[in-house]
Amino acid sequence: MGNFFNDFKSGNMGITKMSGEKRQATLLLIIQICVIVLTGVLVTYGPDTRPDSSRSRSAMPYYVPPTEKPETDPTSIYPMYQDVHVMIFIGFGFLMTFLRRYGQSAIGLTFLLGAILVQVAILCDGIFKIGDNGKAPLSLDSLLNADVAVAAPLISMGALLGKTTYMQLIVMGIIELVIYTLNKYIGEQHLLVVDDGGSIFVHAFGAYFGLAVSFVFGLRNKPKSQAHELEGSSYQSDIFAMIGTIFLWLFWPSFNSATLHGDEQRRAIVNTLLSIAASCVISFAVSALVSKRNKFDMVHVQNSTLAGGVAIGTAAGMMCQPVGALTIGAISGVISVLGYKHLTPWMQNRLRIHDTCGVHNLHGMPAVLAGLFGALLAGLATEADYNYALYEIFPARIPSLGQNLTEINNSYQLSLRPGPNRTAGMQASYQLLALAVTLVVAIVSGLVTGLILRLPLCGSLTEEQKFNDSVNWEIESEDEVQKISNANKDENSQSAEVAMGHI
Amino acid sequence: MGNFFNDFKSGNMGITKMSGEKRQATLLLIIQICVIVLTGVLVTYGPDTRPDSSRSRSAMPYYVPPTEKPETDPTSIYPMYQDVHVMIFIGFGFLMTFLRRYGQSAIGLTFLLGAILVQVAILCDGIFKIGDNGKAPLSLDSLLNADVAVAAPLISMGALLGKTTYMQLIVMGIIELVIYTLNKYIGEQHLLVVDDGGSIFVHAFGAYFGLAVSFVFGLRNKPKSQAHELEGSSYQSDIFAMIGTIFLWLFWPSFNSATLHGDEQRRAIVNTLLSIAASCVISFAVSALVSKRNKFDMVHVQNSTLAGGVAIGTAAGMMCQPVGALTIGAISGVISVLGYKHLTPWMQNRLRIHDTCGVHNLHGMPAVLAGLFGALLAGLATEADYNYALYEIFPARIPSLGQNLTEINNSYQLSLRPGPNRTAGMQASYQLLALAVTLVVAIVSGLVTGLILRLPLCGSLTEEQKFNDSVNWEIESEDEVQKISNANKDENSQSAEVAMGHI
Amino acid sequence: MGNFFNDFKSGNMGITKMSGEKRQATLLLIIQICVIVLTGVLVTYGPDTRPDSSRSRSAMPYYVPPTEKPETDPTSIYPMYQDVHVMIFIGFGFLMTFLRRYGQSAIGLTFLLGAILVQVAILCDGIFKIGDNGKAPLSLDSLLNADVAVAAPLISMGALLGKTTYMQLIVMGIIELVIYTLNKYIGEQHLLVVDDGGSIFVHAFGAYFGLAVSFVFGLRNKPKSQAHELEGSSYQSDIFAMIGTIFLWLFWPSFNSATLHGDEQRRAIVNTLLSIAASCVISFAVSALVSKRNKFDMVHVQNSTLAGGVAIGTAAGMMCQPVGALTIGAISGVISVLGYKHLTPWMQNRLRIHDTCGVHNLHGMPAVLAGLFGALLAGLATEADYNYALYEIFPARIPSLGQNLTEINNSYQLSLRPGPNRTAGMQASYQLLALAVTLVVAIVSGLVTGLILRLPLCGSLTEEQKFNDSVNWEIESEDEVQKISNANKDENSQSAEVAMGHI
Repeated sequence: MGNFFNDFKSGNMGITKMSGEKRQATLLLIIQICVIVLTGVLVTYGPDTRPDSSRSRSAMPYYVPPTEKPETDPTSIYPMYQDVHVMIFIGFGFLMTFLRRYGQSAIGLTFLLGAILVQVAILCDGIFKIGDNGKAPLSLDSLLNADVAVAAPLISMGALLGKTTYMQLIVMGIIELVIYTLNKYIGEQHLLVVDDGGSIFVHAFGAYFGLAVSFVFGLRNKPKSQAHELEGSSYQSDIFAMIGTIFLWLFWPSFNSATLHGDEQRRAIVNTLLSIAASCVISFAVSALVSKRNKFDMVHVQNSTLAGGVAIGTAAGMMCQPVGALTIGAISGVISVLGYKHLTPWMQNRLRIHDTCGVHNLHGMPAVLAGLFGALLAGLATEADYNYALYEIFPARIPSLGQNLTEINNSYQLSLRPGPNRTAGMQASYQLLALAVTLVVAIVSGLVTGLILRLPLCGSLTEEQKFNDSVNWEIESEDEVQKISNANKDENSQSAEVAMGHI
Repeated sequence: MGNFFNDFKSGNMGITKMSGEKRQATLLLIIQICVIVLTGVLVTYGPDTRPDSSRSRSAMPYYVPPTEKPETDPTSIYPMYQDVHVMIFIGFGFLMTFLRRYGQSAIGLTFLLGAILVQVAILCDGIFKIGDNGKAPLSLDSLLNADVAVAAPLISMGALLGKTTYMQLIVMGIIELVIYTLNKYIGEQHLLVVDDGGSIFVHAFGAYFGLAVSFVFGLRNKPKSQAHELEGSSYQSDIFAMIGTIFLWLFWPSFNSATLHGDEQRRAIVNTLLSIAASCVISFAVSALVSKRNKFDMVHVQNSTLAGGVAIGTAAGMMCQPVGALTIGAISGVISVLGYKHLTPWMQNRLRIHDTCGVHNLHGMPAVLAGLFGALLAGLATEADYNYALYEIFPARIPSLGQNLTEINNSYQLSLRPGPNRTAGMQASYQLLALAVTLVVAIVSGLVTGLILRLPLCGSLTEEQKFNDSVNWEIESEDEVQKISNANKDENSQSAEVAMGHI
Repeated sequence: MGNFFNDFKSGNMGITKMSGEKRQATLLLIIQICVIVLTGVLVTYGPDTRPDSSRSRSAMPYYVPPTEKPETDPTSIYPMYQDVHVMIFIGFGFLMTFLRRYGQSAIGLTFLLGAILVQVAILCDGIFKIGDNGKAPLSLDSLLNADVAVAAPLISMGALLGKTTYMQLIVMGIIELVIYTLNKYIGEQHLLVVDDGGSIFVHAFGAYFGLAVSFVFGLRNKPKSQAHELEGSSYQSDIFAMIGTIFLWLFWPSFNSATLHGDEQRRAIVNTLLSIAASCVISFAVSALVSKRNKFDMVHVQNSTLAGGVAIGTAAGMMCQPVGALTIGAISGVISVLGYKHLTPWMQNRLRIHDTCGVHNLHGMPAVLAGLFGALLAGLATEADYNYALYEIFPARIPSLGQNLTEINNSYQLSLRPGPNRTAGMQASYQLLALAVTLVVAIVSGLVTGLILRLPLCGSLTEEQKFNDSVNWEIESEDEVQKISNANKDENSQSAEVAMGHI
């Protein structure tokens, strides 16, 4: 505290004179203060969090829900929000603890990154919602959207895990959230594309953005003939990582359905459960088939088992039938395991794209598959299958003013406003367009961001510092370790795991 | 991938020519494909997951709910479903990580087994619900029922933990789910027995089925004078196991009440919380009283603390009063700890039934106690205590056509159809009958299944392979370990736990 | 079992003749039996858990909700209750596993303490609710209140972690719950003070009570020149502790809002999320600024990141605006980290108050801050900002019978009964009074309790037994450890973390 405040008093806060670590910490403090100020300027309580609430439903373009439908309790999304919240902080956090000496950083930096980026995401999302009072309304929906948005930079972090300073991750995350918000806004509001579980806008975007950053990071270094000695798991760290895997697997149906309602929401739950169950089983099977001595590989079990959640994401609420959900999940499991086995080494050796957690196999390829599957189902969607929900799910298919619109409104007791009158094929094309736009935006902005992250302000790691918790954490001094070591000498001559029986 | 597809091309998939491990993996792939095909043939969206839903409530025999009651939102079971979901995959999975060298398999195989069996359970459950369109409807209820069903084979797995190949577990699980579904159908639909938390149909069935399989497994081997050297816990693995214990303990009220409604559901929550709290405290106390030097025993703390959740299961929604719930929980805690202390060694030495996790003490005996307690309460149930809920909880007590029925319908504003007109004593007898039938079915089918699991197709483990993760997992090569070992030599001379301070 | 029942038969249960450990276990058994008997005498099902429910809403003084408001489903608090349940048992339990050799006790004793104290808390709470039938009604609200109450003794346990027997904790907890209930009753029902998240009644009370007990414990011992050799973390134990931290962080919005309704509840969720996010980021930043070599300190990351949840607690449902929530969270993060850095060592050296987990920094000071912030907001609250909710949140501000009351009832369609007609300033003063009363009550009753805990009945630990799991747990015999050690000799010569690759 002394030093800290002395620095303030003597005006020695000049950020350029500091050590790299101190500069990062000061920058972190400044970023949080800026966020507080911006929130003060821009954000206030929304209709659902104010006492006088005469609530208006979140606006969907063209589609107006039947008036006689009872209004949903705005608190009812909270349990699903908490599921997503657990996925972001426990799920992503522990999933990345698999590295032998980077567990504290994996869980700790996910925590830090998530906490600052949730606030940034609320601001980004709010910009588009500023009302007549000059303020963006804050509701439970905002929190949910923020958590979903934060998944994108956390996915990107997976590609970079262990190779960056925490400030590089934070700067990357802030830039990424701005681009993410713009890209999603264009896709959802202008291209009128459906992406229930965010496979296109979150998973594909986050994965290819992160891979692009990693590519830029790799350009500076000579190609390595062998892996970093700390880039591997340990027996314990693999079990910690399973905490992350299982919670992600369990709550993925909430992730894909939290923003939906009624039967569409329940269908998304069912479809996601089936898809992710199939990808789990298939990942185990293919892992054993392609691995040495036909055993399971922990990397596949921790990651590819989740591919089905990504692969069904775009189409989670669509009428793909249970068998369709199982099939797409199974395919994604095959792709993901084979990606780990063959594509990741190739990308590293040939393209010099290093991908610590293999996000290309868990998020990248399954998300592209999800986009294609969503386009396919959009192209097959008929009113016979979907009933009135065709226009709820695909509002762009609402006819323009005329005979058709009147008939639909009459037969389903709806009050639809005239829409873009897309055919199924047009909707499918727009789905593919949004996927393509997202991939291009992610890669280009990722490359630029990679260059920005080389700025000295963010710091950087040497080869020796990589994958090592000692970069981020103040750990016991050597003397103290030695003292304990001597005190416990006889324990230490045995395995630490069985050393407790001496008393 | 190369080998994998070459095998396909050259027609070398003949399953008999493969190594045991490859055969298992191929069989796993085939099982998943069969499940996908069967789902395609048999399952479609249900009324709650289709857009045109004119929902009908899940049929209860005889009891028709008051018409003026507002229909429940079918999504409202989702939070409880997720609690159960966490119990199955995190709870059971981590509970079984207590073994020193089997943690990855415990959590990994629970994951695999759960993911494939959830799909199988949906199919088994669906068979009884096939409608006019030749398809079984899939809803959130189906997912909940599937998770509950999967608990039975996971309990059986507890008795066999570390002694089987994963394919033996999967084959066992599929057979067990078929028998489970039949037994439960008979008990619930024909014997009209109440078993809110599934203590009879899930816990007793799963435990005695697993013990019967374990008995058959034990017949082949000579009795051992001492325990397997890997069959014990380590300091870390005991803490991992507590993750499972606590999540099971926390969410058990959801398990026992998820399928209920209204005050019955809330009563089941309250009763389960009280019962499992008492069993926790009593387990600690008795553990200290019967253990060496009066310390706590981790085995008891990890398992017996949960016995109260099982023991209240059958009667969770009945009017046992808070003191009744506490008492039954306390009794189950005593029984469970004493079972671990005295019965498990006796069963192993005399009956040659080996029970790795002690499922007889956590699930078997407490479930029998639950069945008896349920019969007792059913025998004591009067309209004075239960009000109209007597006929909601025990539909078999609805009078047959006549004066009585009319009076009841009038006084409670119900529209009950004529029922079997059982007395309290008759209902109690049926409860006992269902318990007896379940025990017989579980033991007989478990013995047969044990014989089936000896088929070479499922593989088997040698004595040396037991309780050892290296059977299932591809772990770092010796060379790599050696390399890291040398690089980190000075750390390794100290306890691994304090080795991080050198940097 | 033999010894146990022989003791009963031979009348050798005389508690004074037993070894200290056996006496504790017997006492635990007796306590649980007493709780069962008391529950039998005092508690029955409430209106929500009985079949005949003609439900009455939980009484709030003076404020009667608008009659046309639809009645809330009493089961709707269950998901939030489960979040709180996870916080108490997983959150607090794992948070305290950070000690190198005390992880099993941390999680195990939290489990034991929580399970017995939940039952005691239900009794304490029930005493004030005994109805005409001479019984206290038990509902889901009771379970929620009990979990919240149990947080207080678990916070006190944090100050004492590793320095007491389990019986000392249980006796302390029972005494503490009695005082807690009285203090909260006076504050809420007589002083009519608002404390949404229990920062005053739970956090401040629990922290200062525990510190007072710790002070008494420290009086007997000579001041130590150096820390206990086991009083520190290990690499693995720090990761286990993060499980607790993250779950607490995630579910804190539920803790602060579970007892609220409607927009007030949603506002409490949003405010808590913002406050705890800001305290997380600021804790990381300040931790790096004040730590050696500007790295993060795990103690700060595990604890101070949560300070924002405490600091917003009292005012969680008030109109502090998003920027207010962020600001109070940020301030609490600064205070908490600086507390760990400077105040904790000073308190230990000068005041001889030892605080194992630093509860003063996580719960004590942030709770005082919360009380002050709550008073500030109460002093600023106007009908212009709060609308009708002014009288829902601050019922003491309802005017006494007269013109004003009639106008308010007319304009908001309310049916308020005449109230104490406090001004904003008066309400603020009462808020401060309740904070002061709570601090005095906590410290005085904590000092007395500390003296009671020296009774031989509770046992006590020697200096060598502190922070050591071997006091509580029956761990493998030395022989067995040696055997395994020899069998695995070559593994043991390497780091235990990478020892699995030999098979």
